[in-house]
Amino acid sequence: MKPIKVGLLGLGVVGGGVWDVLRRNGEEISRRAGRRIEVAAIAVRDVAKARARVDGDVTVTADPYAVVRDPAIDIVVELIGGSTLTRELVLEAIAQGKHVVTANKALLAVHGNEIFAAASKRGVMVTFEAAVAGGIPIIKAIREGLTANRIGWLAGIINGTTNFILSEMRSKGLPFATVLAEAQRLGYAEADPTFDVEGVDAAHKLTLLASLAFGVPVQFDKAHIEGISKLEQEDIVHAERLGYRIKLLGVTRRRADGIELRVHPALVPAQRLLANVEGAMNAVLVWGDAVGATLYYGQGAGAEPTASAVIADLVDVTRLHTADPHNRVPHLAFQPDALSDLPILPISEVHTAYYLRLKVQDQPGVLADIAGILSRAGISIGSMIQEPAEDGATIIFLTHEAVERNVDEAIASIEQLPFVHSRVTRLRLENLK
Amino acid sequence: MKPIKVGLLGLGVVGGGVWDVLRRNGEEISRRAGRRIEVAAIAVRDVAKARARVDGDVTVTADPYAVVRDPAIDIVVELIGGSTLTRELVLEAIAQGKHVVTANKALLAVHGNEIFAAASKRGVMVTFEAAVAGGIPIIKAIREGLTANRIGWLAGIINGTTNFILSEMRSKGLPFATVLAEAQRLGYAEADPTFDVEGVDAAHKLTLLASLAFGVPVQFDKAHIEGISKLEQEDIVHAERLGYRIKLLGVTRRRADGIELRVHPALVPAQRLLANVEGAMNAVLVWGDAVGATLYYGQGAGAEPTASAVIADLVDVTRLHTADPHNRVPHLAFQPDALSDLPILPISEVHTAYYLRLKVQDQPGVLADIAGILSRAGISIGSMIQEPAEDGATIIFLTHEAVERNVDEAIASIEQLPFVHSRVTRLRLENLK
Repeated sequence: MKPIKVGLLGLGVVGGGVWDVLRRNGEEISRRAGRRIEVAAIAVRDVAKARARVDGDVTVTADPYAVVRDPAIDIVVELIGGSTLTRELVLEAIAQGKHVVTANKALLAVHGNEIFAAASKRGVMVTFEAAVAGGIPIIKAIREGLTANRIGWLAGIINGTTNFILSEMRSKGLPFATVLAEAQRLGYAEADPTFDVEGVDAAHKLTLLASLAFGVPVQFDKAHIEGISKLEQEDIVHAERLGYRIKLLGVTRRRADGIELRVHPALVPAQRLLANVEGAMNAVLVWGDAVGATLYYGQGAGAEPTASAVIADLVDVTRLHTADPHNRVPHLAFQPDALSDLPILPISEVHTAYYLRLKVQDQPGVLADIAGILSRAGISIGSMIQEPAEDGATIIFLTHEAVERNVDEAIASIEQLPFVHSRVTRLRLENLK
Repeated sequence: MKPIKVGLLGLGVVGGGVWDVLRRNGEEISRRAGRRIEVAAIAVRDVAKARARVDGDVTVTADPYAVVRDPAIDIVVELIGGSTLTRELVLEAIAQGKHVVTANKALLAVHGNEIFAAASKRGVMVTFEAAVAGGIPIIKAIREGLTANRIGWLAGIINGTTNFILSEMRSKGLPFATVLAEAQRLGYAEADPTFDVEGVDAAHKLTLLASLAFGVPVQFDKAHIEGISKLEQEDIVHAERLGYRIKLLGVTRRRADGIELRVHPALVPAQRLLANVEGAMNAVLVWGDAVGATLYYGQGAGAEPTASAVIADLVDVTRLHTADPHNRVPHLAFQPDALSDLPILPISEVHTAYYLRLKVQDQPGVLADIAGILSRAGISIGSMIQEPAEDGATIIFLTHEAVERNVDEAIASIEQLPFVHSRVTRLRLENLK
């Protein structure tokens, strides 16, 4: 069969990885796909640099529109990043009747509904395995592997930078700022680490996973996002003593009244596999009503792991590009006319367990007053430790599941108590059951 | 679109699970698949019992051939088990132009080449996600998710019964026979546990995984198979003290000269996720040259986890049944005309690390003699412990990677030494790197 012709937009880390893997494994990939996958054109800013990197019969141009509009190209691979130019390029590729493979979570989390609608209308595929959790085939698992299930929830470590930082904070006992500087030196964190560290990148990915799991439109603007920059070393130590590890989790859960969609640090029981995912690795735990819990683990970033996902999409598109569009896997796992309008719940309506830490004056009645406030707010205490601290005592509560709104109100009341000497540090706790 | 019509062969544990999940989640599955998946006929031995279990407009018959030849049926789901009758039924279904979904690893590990060839010739699909690791979409991951990769090796805990037994032996300090009896009482082990306990079931599954990973024909008869029935409690304890856990692993590895295909107990470093897969759970670790290591974890058996995989296949077949057969995912991941003839290596040619335990008389020169034998056989020692035992000392060696043939020869020589009082207990050790 004729080779399928690919146009690459971008030849940075991931683009270079795609080029290298297709080169190295081209023959083995053809043995699987049944035909060759050939990069026929590349658009880059620096043509001379790209020319030096790639050899062979490839058009290299500075004009991405020339690739997107090239009639010889079957599939456009968008690896530029950002969401302004890429939105235009992807929509133009679709308008030209080309299939699109992208690793761009920011683009799809924000403009996904528009892009998928345009693609469905034009009868082309937009695939994005590489947009979430790098080389782990998590999108395929949810979209195709778990189709029998009513998915109840999923929780993932889907940002390698923050997981690396948290692993280092725990194992070396260092504060956030020190570890971040080290991560930047090692190339695990960007010069401006905001997107990773503040949870935005994880929220982009979680937004996509929630749509695939529950069949709702992409709604990044409704996600609740907290990062790890305010996390204190002290809480990592307390968590460990209590049998937990703190991870930056993306959690999405279907409830009768809506969907929870939230990224934040959370305590996870130390014996769970997810708690043992260390360094820059990623993992996603998915619960379906038939299959129970399944977990998917691997490298969430890097040139070749991400290229692995891009090329898996290329093989899929190669196989399906002649299929009747109605028989292809829908972009968001559910048929476009069968999406659900279940709302995304505000964070105040989330149900989960909590870790609360505060400093109090060590005097009679303290615990009774605090416990009374929690009890009146409908929050039951799973366990508690109190220990001497400078000028008084530190108290830590682990609560059973409660409504976040009630927890916030209880914390506000507790902070009013005259013998409470600190703000209440509140972290969510996920039992993942 | 018209519903797709399914004929079920068998309504036991898994068949019942398929029926229940299709019932419960039918509407959500249709929202994904774009059409309804409808069980139209069921063949069972006890028609009256099945009639009492299923309601609605379903043909129930005692004649499986009536289902296989029913012109109204699009997909035959084989959940009878065994490989004599099922081989005939599956081949007949294929001859009738029907697609087949099966959970039958024994059938495919032994008759897979014949069945896949017949299916390819007739232009129908035979899918088997449920045959390996229950609800974990591991076949999809390898066959479609990792297509970019040259897969180097995979190692899996793919038999829940033995993993349950090993977990109990370790956590409760009990011998094999006691735990097996308990597992039988709980329903985790069959009355005749041979297939599970002696590694045959795991080898069936590993045989299929090896074909998908490396593009070789199914060759169950070449697999090396050892179970856990001879495993001693003592070695589990020693392993734990040395920082390892013993798991029944299926390991397959591609080397330049052939493929290793082996099921046996193995020491695994305790900090690896795979070592922390406990109870009846399954997990498969796959290493690809682009993606690195990825791991897939979940329930490897049970009615609904297995049904989850069967139904995922049903949805896939539903989507692809109108596609050009050349564009479908090949049965064994690689195009049938692109399979490799790389041989399966005999166990004597395997390269791995070893745990050796023996009892010696405590006298000068013992260690020098044994170390000399190992050294002359080209086996280097990673670590060693010696401790007093009744009438002498126990010595344990952990070796670096060596060729099994050399290890066997060294063991034979060591057992000849006059001061060696026991057979040498030899277990393989997998670093999984």
